Amino acid sequence: MERVEIILAGGTVVTMNDGFDVIPDGAVAIRDAKIVAVGTRAEVAAAYEADTVVDCAGQYIMPGLVNAHTHVPMTLLRGLADDLRLDVWLMGYMMPTEREFVNPEFCRVGTGLACAEMIRSGITCFADMYYYEAEVAAATVEAGLRGVLGQTILKFPSPDAETYEFSLDYAAQFIEKWRGHPLITPAVAPHAPYSTTDDILRECAQLAKAYDVPILIHIAETKLEVEDNVELHGMTVVPWVQSVGLLDAKVLAAHCVHINGGEMRILHDHHTTVAHCPTSNLKLAAGIAPVAQMLEHDLTVGIGTDGTASNNDLDMFEEVRLAAILAKTAANDPTALPARQALLMATRMGAEALFMGDITGSLEVGKLADVITVEANPVHNVPQFSRDPNAVYSRIVYAGKSSDVRHVICNGRWLMRDRQLLTIDEKTLLEQAEAYAVKIDRFLSAREEDILSKLLAIGGLEQSESFEVQVKASIPDGEVVQKLLKHPNVQVLAQHHYRQYDTYFLFQDDAKGRVRYREDDRIDERGEVVSVRTRLTYTLPTKEREFSQAILLSHSRFIAEADRPLRFFREYFQPEAERELQKDRRRWHIHYQGVLFYVNVDRILSPALPQIFIELKSRTWSKSDAENKADRIQEMLGILGVTQADIIREEYLEMQASP
Amino acid sequence: MERVEIILAGGTVVTMNDGFDVIPDGAVAIRDAKIVAVGTRAEVAAAYEADTVVDCAGQYIMPGLVNAHTHVPMTLLRGLADDLRLDVWLMGYMMPTEREFVNPEFCRVGTGLACAEMIRSGITCFADMYYYEAEVAAATVEAGLRGVLGQTILKFPSPDAETYEFSLDYAAQFIEKWRGHPLITPAVAPHAPYSTTDDILRECAQLAKAYDVPILIHIAETKLEVEDNVELHGMTVVPWVQSVGLLDAKVLAAHCVHINGGEMRILHDHHTTVAHCPTSNLKLAAGIAPVAQMLEHDLTVGIGTDGTASNNDLDMFEEVRLAAILAKTAANDPTALPARQALLMATRMGAEALFMGDITGSLEVGKLADVITVEANPVHNVPQFSRDPNAVYSRIVYAGKSSDVRHVICNGRWLMRDRQLLTIDEKTLLEQAEAYAVKIDRFLSAREEDILSKLLAIGGLEQSESFEVQVKASIPDGEVVQKLLKHPNVQVLAQHHYRQYDTYFLFQDDAKGRVRYREDDRIDERGEVVSVRTRLTYTLPTKEREFSQAILLSHSRFIAEADRPLRFFREYFQPEAERELQKDRRRWHIHYQGVLFYVNVDRILSPALPQIFIELKSRTWSKSDAENKADRIQEMLGILGVTQADIIREEYLEMQASP
Repeated sequence: MERVEIILAGGTVVTMNDGFDVIPDGAVAIRDAKIVAVGTRAEVAAAYEADTVVDCAGQYIMPGLVNAHTHVPMTLLRGLADDLRLDVWLMGYMMPTEREFVNPEFCRVGTGLACAEMIRSGITCFADMYYYEAEVAAATVEAGLRGVLGQTILKFPSPDAETYEFSLDYAAQFIEKWRGHPLITPAVAPHAPYSTTDDILRECAQLAKAYDVPILIHIAETKLEVEDNVELHGMTVVPWVQSVGLLDAKVLAAHCVHINGGEMRILHDHHTTVAHCPTSNLKLAAGIAPVAQMLEHDLTVGIGTDGTASNNDLDMFEEVRLAAILAKTAANDPTALPARQALLMATRMGAEALFMGDITGSLEVGKLADVITVEANPVHNVPQFSRDPNAVYSRIVYAGKSSDVRHVICNGRWLMRDRQLLTIDEKTLLEQAEAYAVKIDRFLSAREEDILSKLLAIGGLEQSESFEVQVKASIPDGEVVQKLLKHPNVQVLAQHHYRQYDTYFLFQDDAKGRVRYREDDRIDERGEVVSVRTRLTYTLPTKEREFSQAILLSHSRFIAEADRPLRFFREYFQPEAERELQKDRRRWHIHYQGVLFYVNVDRILSPALPQIFIELKSRTWSKSDAENKADRIQEMLGILGVTQADIIREEYLEMQASP
Repeated sequence: MERVEIILAGGTVVTMNDGFDVIPDGAVAIRDAKIVAVGTRAEVAAAYEADTVVDCAGQYIMPGLVNAHTHVPMTLLRGLADDLRLDVWLMGYMMPTEREFVNPEFCRVGTGLACAEMIRSGITCFADMYYYEAEVAAATVEAGLRGVLGQTILKFPSPDAETYEFSLDYAAQFIEKWRGHPLITPAVAPHAPYSTTDDILRECAQLAKAYDVPILIHIAETKLEVEDNVELHGMTVVPWVQSVGLLDAKVLAAHCVHINGGEMRILHDHHTTVAHCPTSNLKLAAGIAPVAQMLEHDLTVGIGTDGTASNNDLDMFEEVRLAAILAKTAANDPTALPARQALLMATRMGAEALFMGDITGSLEVGKLADVITVEANPVHNVPQFSRDPNAVYSRIVYAGKSSDVRHVICNGRWLMRDRQLLTIDEKTLLEQAEAYAVKIDRFLSAREEDILSKLLAIGGLEQSESFEVQVKASIPDGEVVQKLLKHPNVQVLAQHHYRQYDTYFLFQDDAKGRVRYREDDRIDERGEVVSVRTRLTYTLPTKEREFSQAILLSHSRFIAEADRPLRFFREYFQPEAERELQKDRRRWHIHYQGVLFYVNVDRILSPALPQIFIELKSRTWSKSDAENKADRIQEMLGILGVTQADIIREEYLEMQASP
C-alpha cells in the first residue's frame, strides 16, 4: 500500500482526459501536489492509503475550472457603472476611478476578493491582466490559486507607471522575481494594439521571448477596433500584430470577436491561443465571437469571465453554459459546441490556452492536483439519465451552478472544503471592499454634483479658464462690418468663415451651468469645408460684471478640444435637455489701436433668426484691462453706428427659447 | 397598532412599483395573503405588530419572480437528450418518451420537482403549458405557487387525448373546476399554429373568451415556422393567427423570435403579451428575439425559462441576466435593456404578461403577498456602490444568483425559509424522479440497441414488412430487356424512368442491418423531373433463403415514406459510416404468365460502375408462392439469355466496396 495525502473517493470522476473517461464510483489520489492515481474507488483503495479520505458520493470529481481572461483587482469596481457604452463606461467611470484609487493595496484586496469568489465557483487557475501585478501575484499565492499574471503595458500613463518604459521595467522585474514559482506564471500584457504602439508590441514580444513567458493581450474585441486598425495600418488586427512580430511569442489573445478565417489561420500557425469571453462581449455589445469556426480552424480556445466590471461576476459555470448556447445560435446549428466541448474549453483546453496543458486541466496521473467536486444531485439537476455518455457533461454545463461546487483543491492544497474557504479571511475582505466602495462612491458623487469636476474627471481635457469682455448687437446687414474693418484705427490680422453646429446640454439646475459641444467647419471662398474641429465649452450662467452699453465680462469658461464624439458626452453628462443651434459665422481678428479684438458676424440658420448679429470680443486678464477694452468696444460700436436699442444681452439660445 | 401575520424588516425593499421606489432599511407587512404595508422599518414598526417579524438585514426584499413560459412536468426529462437539432430532439426523443411515460402521476411528480426548483430560485408565479394540466394544478397548489396553467391542444394525438376535441373538452372541464382558485388561473394552450389548425385556434379562442381565461401559445419560435406559414397561408404567423380570431382572446405568446415591426403593432393592438425565453432560443439555435424593439412598440414582455428539456433549468436569475445582456448585442447597443428594465420584465411586467399585473408582480399595498428575499452581500456580489440609483438592479441582475434567494412567500404563505422548503418533500420527489430516469433510460436504451425499434419509436413511420424474391444480373446493354418485354408471355403494365439518389447508413455491427434513404426522382421523356419522393428502407443483411441461380428471398424490410429530411435521420441514427449511390433506373411492371413482376434496368452513375444491370423481383407471402415465383424468374432469365456467370449476388453497395 502506497501512502498518499488525500483520496477523493466514491464520486463520478469526470477526467476530461483525451479519452474523456468518466468513472462512476471513482477516486483520485493526491500526493506532493500531484495526482498519483485516477480509477475506480476499489482500484484506488486497493493500492493506496491516505491521511484523508473524503467521501464524494453524489458528487462529480473533476478538474478545477480555468478562467482564461480576467482582471481580478477590478472586482472592487463590480457594479460601479453598468448599462453604459464602452467609452463612457471606460473613460467616464473606470479610468477616472482607477487613476484615483488603484494602488498596491487596492490590487491586493481586489485580488483576494476575486480569489474568494473564484474558489467558491470552482476555478483553480486564471489568466489576469492588471496593474501592480506583483501584488496580484502575492494575493493569489496567499489564496492558493494558480495564475498566469500579466503586467499591463499601455502607451498612456497608467496607475502604476508614468510611461510604458517604466511598465516594461516593472514587468521585467516582476518576471525575474516570480518565474519558477509553483503557482505563478508571470507574463507581459500589452493592453491591446490600439492602446499600445508597434514599438511597445515589439518590446513586449522580445521581453516575453527572452524569459519564455506568455503574452496576454486583447485582440479584435470590437468592430470599431478593427475598422480603426484598417484605417491606421491598412490591415485588420491579427495581420498587423503578426507584422510587428508579436505572434512570435506565446500569445493568449482575449476576445477575438471580429476575426476572419484568414486571421484564424494566422493565429493557428503561430500557436496563438484565444480566450473567449461571451458574457462580457454580450454585455458591452461587442458582438458574438465565431467560436465554432475557431474550433474548426483547430485553434485552442479557453473561456474567460473577463473582469467583474463587465460581467459582473467570476462565475465560470455561467460562462461555460453561455459559451455553449451562444455558439449554437451564432452557427445557426443546435449541435454546435456541445456540452462536452464547452467543458473541455473550461478545463484541459483552457489550460492549453494558458500554455500549461501539460501540467493541469484534466485528472491524469502526473498532472498537478487541481481538483474540484460538484454536487451531482441538487434539485435543479435531477433526474440523471445515463443512456447517453455525454449526459454527464450536459448536466454539468446546462444545469450545474457554481453554488454546487463543494470542495476545491489546488496544487494539492485544500482551498475550500464543504464550502468553507480555508485560505481566505472572507469577512475582513468584505469589510475592506465595502470601505473602498464608500470612498469611491464619495469620490464619484462629488464629481457628479459639479459639471466642471465631471468634465475634468474624464481627463484628456484640461481646464483653461478665460475671461472675456464682449458685446452683441443686431445690424441691418453684414456689410455694416466694413465700416469698422476699413476704419483707419483698425488693422485686419486674419479673416475666417465658419459653419458652426452647436449642441447645448442643459441641466435642471441652471446654476450648474451648461456644456456646449461645437463643431466648427471652416469654409473657403468656394464654400467648401476645409477643416473641422470640435470643442467643448462649459459656461456658468452668471456674468461677472456688466459695463456700460451691456458690455459683459464673462468668466470661468472651460474650453477644450472635444476628442470624443457628441454621443459620448451626451451619455456621460445625461443632460436634462438638449438644444441645437446652427450658424454661419464670419470672423475677423483685428487690432484696434494696437489691441487684439475678435469680430464675428453671425447669421443663425437653425432654428433660424431673421436678424444679423455682430459680436465684438477680447480676452482679458485684469480689471483695469477689462475696463480699458470695454471702452474701446464702445468706440467701435460708435464707428459701426450701433445704438443702445440694437444691443442684445441674451445669448442666441435664449433668443430662441423665448417664443 | 394593527396586527399582521408577517413583517419582513430591515432589508432593502426593491418595490418594482411604478416609481421604482427602493427603501433602504425597509419593511413589508403581510396579512390575509396580501401586502398591507410597504415602508421604512421604522414606519412599519410604528403602525403594525406581527406574529412573525423576520430580520432581513443584508437582504433585498423584492417581488417574487414571474416565469412567463415553461413546461413544468418536463422537468423529469431534464438532460435526457441535448445538443441535438430541434426535430431530432423533439420527434426523436421527447415525443417518443412522452408517448410512453406521460400520465397523471408523471405530471404530478414533474410539477412537484419543478416547483421545488422554482421556489429555491425565487419564482412565485409561472405560466405552464403541458398535458394533464389538472394534475399540474393540484401539484402547484400543494407547493403553494401561483400558476397560469394551460391545457395543451394539438392536432395530433397527445399523451392525454386521442383527438383535439377530447383535449378541448378536458380544457373546458379543467377551467370549470379551477377558475376562481386563489392560486390557479386555468388557461387554454393550443400548442402552436403549425401544430394545430385554424379550426382548433378558433375553438380555443372561443373557449378562452367564454370563460375569460388566457390563451398560451408558441408563436414564431423558428424561422422555418415563419417560412412554412407563409407558404401555407400566404402570410407570416401573427397576421395568420389574427385572421383566425385567436388574438381576440387574451393571448400570451411565447418566443416571438421571428416577428417584425408590423407584427409587433398587431400584437400591441390586441393586447397580446409576449414571453421571451432567451436560453431556450439560443440553445435550440432558434435565434435572438428582438426584445428591445418589442419594448419600443410598447409590448408587454415577460421572461420565461421554457421547460428544462431545452434550458436545462428553471433559474430566472440566469434568464433575466441573459435577457439583459443578449438584448445589448442584438441591438448593437450596450445601453439597451438596462438591468432595471430586465428585472421589471421578470416581476411587474411579467405579471402583466400573465394578465395579473393588478394582483402581483410588485410590492405595493393591496397586492398579493408574493415576496422573496435575496442575500445582498455574498462574496460574488460585493462591494455595493450607492451613487447610481440603478446600481441595486445591476447587482441583482448582473451578479445575483438563484442560490442567493433566502426566503420565499407566496400568497402570504411561507414556501421557503432560510433555504428550507416548507411545502415540498424534496427527498421523496428526488427518489421518484430518479425512478423515472431509470425507467426512461431502460426504454430508450432498449430502443437504441435495435435500429428497427429506433425507427418505430419516431412514429409516423409504420413497419410494413415485405418478402421479395429477386435476382440481379449484368447485361451487355439496356436493349436486352426488350427480349423479355416483347415475349408473348409478358404483358407490360407500366413503365417508369427514375433517377435514384440513395444514402446508406451503415453501423459498426453489420448484423444491426442498414438504413437506406432514397430520393426517387421520376423523369419524363424529355428528361425533366416530374415528381420526387423520399423513402426510408431498413434491411437486415441475412437473406432468408436462396433458390437456384441466386434467386434470393429477402425479408424483414421496412419501407416508409421518409417525411423528414435526410439530415434528421443522420443525426437521429448517428451511423458509423455513410455511403452514397446514384443510379438511373428504368422500371417496368409486367405480368409474366399473369403474375406481377418488377423489372429494373439500372446504370450506376456514381460512384460509376461500367456494367448495366437487370433486376427481376416480385413480392411474395408464402413459401410455395416464393418457390413458384423463383421458378418463373428462372424462366425469364432464360428468355433474356442471362447465364449463371452473369448473375450477381452482391448489392450495388458491396460491388462498390470491393475495389
